Amino acid sequence: MRMPLWLDKRASLTPDRIALIGNEEQLTFEQLRQRSKQAAFQLAALGAIGGKRIALLCGNGLHVPTLIHAAQYVGAVLLPLNIRLTARELVFQLQDANCDLLIYDESNAELAGEAGRLLPSLAGCSISQLAEVEPSEVKLNNEIDMDAAHSIMYTSGTTGAPKGVLLTYSNHWASATGSMLNLGLSDQDRWLVCVPMFHISGLSIVMRSVIYGMPIVIHERFEPDAANRAIMEQGVTVVSVVSNMLSRMLNALGDETYPQAFRCMLLGGGPAPLSQLQSCAAKQIPVFQTYGMTETASQIVTLQPEYMLSKLGSAGKPLFQAELRIVHEGKDAAPLEAGEIIVRGPNVTTGYLNRPDATAETIQNGWLYTGDIGYVDEEGFLYVLDRRKDMFVSGGENVYPAEIEAVLVSHPDVLEAGVTGVADEKWGQTPAAFICLKEQAVITEQDVKVYCSDKLAKYKIPSQVYFADKLPRNASNKLLRRELVKLIP
Amino acid sequence: MRMPLWLDKRASLTPDRIALIGNEEQLTFEQLRQRSKQAAFQLAALGAIGGKRIALLCGNGLHVPTLIHAAQYVGAVLLPLNIRLTARELVFQLQDANCDLLIYDESNAELAGEAGRLLPSLAGCSISQLAEVEPSEVKLNNEIDMDAAHSIMYTSGTTGAPKGVLLTYSNHWASATGSMLNLGLSDQDRWLVCVPMFHISGLSIVMRSVIYGMPIVIHERFEPDAANRAIMEQGVTVVSVVSNMLSRMLNALGDETYPQAFRCMLLGGGPAPLSQLQSCAAKQIPVFQTYGMTETASQIVTLQPEYMLSKLGSAGKPLFQAELRIVHEGKDAAPLEAGEIIVRGPNVTTGYLNRPDATAETIQNGWLYTGDIGYVDEEGFLYVLDRRKDMFVSGGENVYPAEIEAVLVSHPDVLEAGVTGVADEKWGQTPAAFICLKEQAVITEQDVKVYCSDKLAKYKIPSQVYFADKLPRNASNKLLRRELVKLIP
Repeated sequence: MRMPLWLDKRASLTPDRIALIGNEEQLTFEQLRQRSKQAAFQLAALGAIGGKRIALLCGNGLHVPTLIHAAQYVGAVLLPLNIRLTARELVFQLQDANCDLLIYDESNAELAGEAGRLLPSLAGCSISQLAEVEPSEVKLNNEIDMDAAHSIMYTSGTTGAPKGVLLTYSNHWASATGSMLNLGLSDQDRWLVCVPMFHISGLSIVMRSVIYGMPIVIHERFEPDAANRAIMEQGVTVVSVVSNMLSRMLNALGDETYPQAFRCMLLGGGPAPLSQLQSCAAKQIPVFQTYGMTETASQIVTLQPEYMLSKLGSAGKPLFQAELRIVHEGKDAAPLEAGEIIVRGPNVTTGYLNRPDATAETIQNGWLYTGDIGYVDEEGFLYVLDRRKDMFVSGGENVYPAEIEAVLVSHPDVLEAGVTGVADEKWGQTPAAFICLKEQAVITEQDVKVYCSDKLAKYKIPSQVYFADKLPRNASNKLLRRELVKLIP
Repeated sequence: MRMPLWLDKRASLTPDRIALIGNEEQLTFEQLRQRSKQAAFQLAALGAIGGKRIALLCGNGLHVPTLIHAAQYVGAVLLPLNIRLTARELVFQLQDANCDLLIYDESNAELAGEAGRLLPSLAGCSISQLAEVEPSEVKLNNEIDMDAAHSIMYTSGTTGAPKGVLLTYSNHWASATGSMLNLGLSDQDRWLVCVPMFHISGLSIVMRSVIYGMPIVIHERFEPDAANRAIMEQGVTVVSVVSNMLSRMLNALGDETYPQAFRCMLLGGGPAPLSQLQSCAAKQIPVFQTYGMTETASQIVTLQPEYMLSKLGSAGKPLFQAELRIVHEGKDAAPLEAGEIIVRGPNVTTGYLNRPDATAETIQNGWLYTGDIGYVDEEGFLYVLDRRKDMFVSGGENVYPAEIEAVLVSHPDVLEAGVTGVADEKWGQTPAAFICLKEQAVITEQDVKVYCSDKLAKYKIPSQVYFADKLPRNASNKLLRRELVKLIP
C-alpha cells in the first residue's frame, strides 16, 4: 500500500503548526519540510537515493528529525547509531548494514573520525559539511511504500552480536495510530523527547509528531530539572520515561506537582517499583505503564488510564491492533502462571537484517517471542517479571531481579537499586544487591536484609549488599544488570 | 491482514466504559459484547454464517449496533436497508445482493412483510422473533480479515439503478483512524448519532465507537430540540449533521449557545451556505466542514480546525492517508478552476457489487471519480460547488444550484431553499427557486429577485420563485433537487 509522504502531507495540512521546539529555535511543519527537502537534495548529491542506507551519529536536536524526514524524501533507509558505542561497535553495525554513508553532528565528530579510520570505505559527512553540499536536483518522493524499510535499529545486544531490527513504514504507522487509540490526541498535546532519538523510544515520538501534527519539545539529554520545567512552563502534556528517570524527576520535583494539563507519563523500559507508582498516584501524576521494545516499534502493551490505580504494577493490555500470549513449556500459560511473553501485531518487525536464523527463531507464525518473562492475571492484564536473560536460578527456584529491586527501592533511604545473580557454592547463584542511597541516608547491609525479610521469600533476599554512587545504565537509562558485578570492590 | 475482532478487543480493553446510550437504556462494551454474541449465535441458527449477507431494516436504536457486531462474530456481510424505501426498491437491493435473510424491527414490520410478499424466497425475522431463536453453538470469530467485505450500502441512486457499494473492514478502519488524526480523541468524547445508521454517516459512528472506545448517544430520529439537549445536558462533544439539520438546531437554540466542551459540529452532505457558517462562527460553534460519500466510508476531506474561520465555506484538505485532485477535461485543473473531484485512499471502496462496468468507470488507478464538481484554492483547500448530476446549463453557462441556494438562504427571512433547472425556450434551462420562509416572514417573488440581483450574475438569478412549507429531502436530509419540480403548482 502507498501513502502520501508523511512530512509532505502534514505540512500541507497544517503548515503553520509548531513541529519542533528546541533550546534556541522552533520550526513549523512547513519550515521543517523546507529544511528536510533541502537536506534531501544534499543527501542525494552524496549518492543517498532509493534504498541506500544512511547512518546517523547524532545527539538529540532539531537536525535529527530534519534528517529523518530527508531520508524519506530520497527513499533511503535510516540507520540511527548509538553515540555511546565505541568506534569498533559502530563499525560492526555499519558493515552489517552495508552502509557507507555516515552523517554526524559536531559533538560526535571524533567518534565518527575513529570509525572512519577503522572503515576506510566509509564516507563521513558532518552536519555543517552537509549544509555546504551543492544540492542535486533529483525528483523527491511524494509518496511512500508502506511495506518498505524505514529504519534499521540495532538491539542493545547484551547477549551475542547486536542484531539489526528492520522497521517498515507500516510498523511505525501502526505504532503511532495504536498509541493514539489508547492515549487519545488533543490539539493541546506536546510530547517531550528526553530519550535518545537513536533509540525507538525517541524515534517513535518523531514519527508521532509528523503523523499527529503534534509539537515535540526536544532535549539534548535527560536532565530531571529541565524535564520538570518543560512540563511546568512549556506546556508539555506527555513524557516518555523509564523508571529511573521518573525517580529522578520526582526527587527534583520535591513537594510540587504537575499542572492538570499534564496528562501522560508514559513509563516503559522495564517493570517499575510499586512504591514509585504509589508515590505518583499520591501526587496524581498520571502514569501509563507500558511494555515494548525495538522489535515492536515501541509500546505494544499499555495500561488503560482507568486501571492506573486498580492495576498498579501492570503494563496493561495489548494495543487495539495487537495480541499477547504467555507461553510456558510450549503451551499457553494459565492466568497468573509465568512464561515467555509473545506478541503479534502490525507494529511488529518483519525480522532481523541478514539474520534469517535469528528471525525464524524469534518470529513464528507472526508471533514475536520476546524472551521476557511475565504473566497475565485473570482479567488479562500483563505483569512483566523480568527480562529472561537477567533471570537466574537459586536452589532450583527462578529468581527475578526486578522483583527484588522493587522491594529495595521501596525503602525510604534507597534512591535506586540493582540486583544480579552471583555464584554460590551451595545454591548455584544467590542475589547480590547494589544500592545507591539518598543524600545523607545511612543504612547497613544488615538493615537491608532485615527490611526484606518479611517482604521476600528467603531465597530472594540478597546474600550480599553493596553500596554505590551510581549504577551502570545504557543510553536509554536501562539498568545493565550484567555490569553490576563490576561494582564489587 | 488480520486483526482481533473489534468488539471483542474493545470489551477486553475497556469492558466497563459506556458504549451506547439510548433513550431508556445504556450498555457498556462488555454488555454490548454479551448481547452481540448472543445475537450472533441466533443469527447462526438462522444460517447466517461465513460470507452470508444479512439485511437490516431498522430505525436507529441500541439493537442496530448489537446486530452490526453480531454479523462480525459470524463473519456475515451487512446490508443496511433504508427504511424510507418502498418494498419494491428494497427487493431490488435484496435480489441484487443475493440476500435472503432480513432482520427488521417492529416499527418496520409492515414494510418487511410487503417485501416478503414480493420476494417469497426471503426469510424475514423480527428483532423479537430473533430473541426467541434457539442459539446455535457455533464457534464465533475472534479475528477479522481486514480485506473482507464488512457491508454493502446502496447509493441513493438519483440516476440509474442503485449500486451496492462494497466496504471492507480496512475501509472502515482507515475512515475511523483518519478522522481521529484530524479531529483528535478525548476520553470525554461522546458522539451523537441522529443520522440514520443505515447510511454511512450513522454506520461510521458505530464503527468509531468500538474502535475508539467512545460512547455514542443514539437518537431514533433527528429532532433539533433533542439534539440540542444532548449537547447541553448529556455531554455530547461531537455531532454529525448536514446543513439543513444544523439550520434547524440553530433555530431551536435561539439565543443560547453550546457549552465549551462541545468541540465538533461535523458538517457534511453538501456545501453549506456561508451565512450559516458565519452564524456559527459568531456563536463560537466549532463547525468542521467535510466532504465524503458512501464510497469513501464517510468523510475523506475535512477542514482543519485552525482554518474554520479563514477558510469559511471550504471542505478542507484530504485526510492524512487520502489524496485529492480536480480533473477538468482529462487534465489536472489549475487552482480555482472547477472540475471533477477525484479522491484516493485506504477508505475508498473497492467497487460496486455485480457492477464491473460501473466500478471500472468510477475507479481508475485507485482514484475514485466522484462526479462532484469543485475546485481547490491556491493553498489546496477544496470548495465543493455541486453534485455533477444537479448541474445544468443555461445559455451556454454552467449553473451550480448550491451557489444560488447559498445566496437565497442568506436572506434573513429564508429558512431553506432549493434550486433546480427548468426548461426555457430561450436559454435551454433556467434556475427555479423553491423557498421555505421563516415563521411570520412575508416576502414576494420580486423581493427575492431584487435581493439576488447584486449578488449573482444575471443567468444565475431564479427566473421563477415558489414558496413551499417543506423541501423534499432523503433520509440523510440531503436535498433532492430533482424532486423540487413537483412543488410547482
